[in-house]
Amino acid sequence: MTEEQRPLQIGVVGLGLIGGSFAAGLKASGMASWVTAWDTAPAMLAEGVALGVIDAPAESLEALMSLVDVAVLAVPGVACEALLPQMLALASGDCCVTDVASVKGPLARLAASLPAEMAARFVPGHPIAGSERSGVAAARADLFRDHRVILTPLANTDAVALGRVERLWESLGAEVTRMSPREHDAVLASTSHLPHMLAYALVDAVAQAPTRDDIFRYAAGGFRDFTRIASSNPVMWRDIALANREALLDGIDGFSAQLELLRSAIDGADGPALEQLFLRAKTARDDYLAARGETAAVAGPAGPKGSS
Amino acid sequence: MTEEQRPLQIGVVGLGLIGGSFAAGLKASGMASWVTAWDTAPAMLAEGVALGVIDAPAESLEALMSLVDVAVLAVPGVACEALLPQMLALASGDCCVTDVASVKGPLARLAASLPAEMAARFVPGHPIAGSERSGVAAARADLFRDHRVILTPLANTDAVALGRVERLWESLGAEVTRMSPREHDAVLASTSHLPHMLAYALVDAVAQAPTRDDIFRYAAGGFRDFTRIASSNPVMWRDIALANREALLDGIDGFSAQLELLRSAIDGADGPALEQLFLRAKTARDDYLAARGETAAVAGPAGPKGSS
Repeated sequence: MTEEQRPLQIGVVGLGLIGGSFAAGLKASGMASWVTAWDTAPAMLAEGVALGVIDAPAESLEALMSLVDVAVLAVPGVACEALLPQMLALASGDCCVTDVASVKGPLARLAASLPAEMAARFVPGHPIAGSERSGVAAARADLFRDHRVILTPLANTDAVALGRVERLWESLGAEVTRMSPREHDAVLASTSHLPHMLAYALVDAVAQAPTRDDIFRYAAGGFRDFTRIASSNPVMWRDIALANREALLDGIDGFSAQLELLRSAIDGADGPALEQLFLRAKTARDDYLAARGETAAVAGPAGPKGSS
Repeated sequence: MTEEQRPLQIGVVGLGLIGGSFAAGLKASGMASWVTAWDTAPAMLAEGVALGVIDAPAESLEALMSLVDVAVLAVPGVACEALLPQMLALASGDCCVTDVASVKGPLARLAASLPAEMAARFVPGHPIAGSERSGVAAARADLFRDHRVILTPLANTDAVALGRVERLWESLGAEVTRMSPREHDAVLASTSHLPHMLAYALVDAVAQAPTRDDIFRYAAGGFRDFTRIASSNPVMWRDIALANREALLDGIDGFSAQLELLRSAIDGADGPALEQLFLRAKTARDDYLAARGETAAVAGPAGPKGSS
């Protein structure tokens, strides 16, 4: 049996929405012959078994690592950094470890500080998918279908391990691409982390305005859509902002420079400059949507729900 | 017959989405016995008649003003400022003029410079509604249903005229409120105009980044929603930014101060400050949605379409 065909035993460390969906998907795709999980919350493990997301709970991290071909580290926040070295130290045979963290720099730097034979087992990854729900009860076998997964292998990442993790994600219907941890973090800073910071800053600025109540009362569709992501989990976003600190500071500075240009054009009543800037942004966005086969949602002053 | 019961003759100056929907709605509600319109594009008038949105075209602004009880000025941008004094000068009897501009300061200042008996006929208004479509063909009798309309009467606005315009909007199912032009422009700067500026600035910053293609390729739901309004009409937003210049500059400065606080917390790796700021923003937004009977769309790192 080739590496490609062998069903694998999978271990999930941190059984929430992402880890649970990975487990359920691999059982559904047939890539996993058996899935176990370990979590600091035993209730999550019991729920995972009851829901059929996993086959059996693991009694400890050691027990899990002794049984699996691939372990996925899916705990939120900085807890990853304590667990990764333990998991890599416990791995034996051809067992490899992957993760799902939103920022790739910190674990890449941590892995680079470990002995080469440990670091080689680590295949860093980031599925760009989520849900407004959390916990294993929200797990869905198709959560990653048609979503992108970015793998950020290190210089000495084992090629067989990398290929194996790639096939796991592909079996879930994900589109897998590779880039460096640094490039990943810069791209995610612009596409996700910076917009979250702007939405939080805008809502916080509005919440402190003397006309706060009127502002919220008259806020229509545009404001609601624009600030939707400011209802995201504050602890998770604290961790992401700290983990992607440098790329995010660069992103904020690039944005602020652009906003200052726009501010100057408004201050100077420079209509042609404003129109040019707005048109350039609209064209860039419409082009990118067109390339994805989508259409721009707005051409007038307001969205379908109204926000002129 | 009392003022409340008398069906009115209505004139629309500028027959597009907003003017056409106002006309169609008033014919449907029975508030208008007859609707005419004048537009610099004769094709719009012919289309309006063919669609049943208006009863007959007016040959000129003079003809229109001689026939109607209420004239609504619904042309986009700065053209309003040339037309309003002409319309008020042509009005006779108890004829009044209202408008639908997104920024109320410029016409308020203009009206204040006119003879008092002319200014008294002017009832400034702003329906907070729109559509991704434009033109009279997109007109809908129910466009304003359950939307807010803000009237911004001046000190000497005629009370009968104000009440008449208010009843017209109410007959369309709109929720009418009143505030001063200055308050209106400050509230709209925060809820609509500033978010548009931020979305344009973000897309423009991204479009100029060296990793532009990757950024757009990996942009998921959060970025798409956040930047939706950057696909809005550049000319319209140039005009709004210029018309609401002072309130918008205040809004940009308030936002920039908040973003600088956030930047400092990231730069100083101040986790507690970040968590507090994010939680404060999330709470403010969730509270406002709850007060409107809606729920926050996002609790995790990503929206339903995924954007962690």
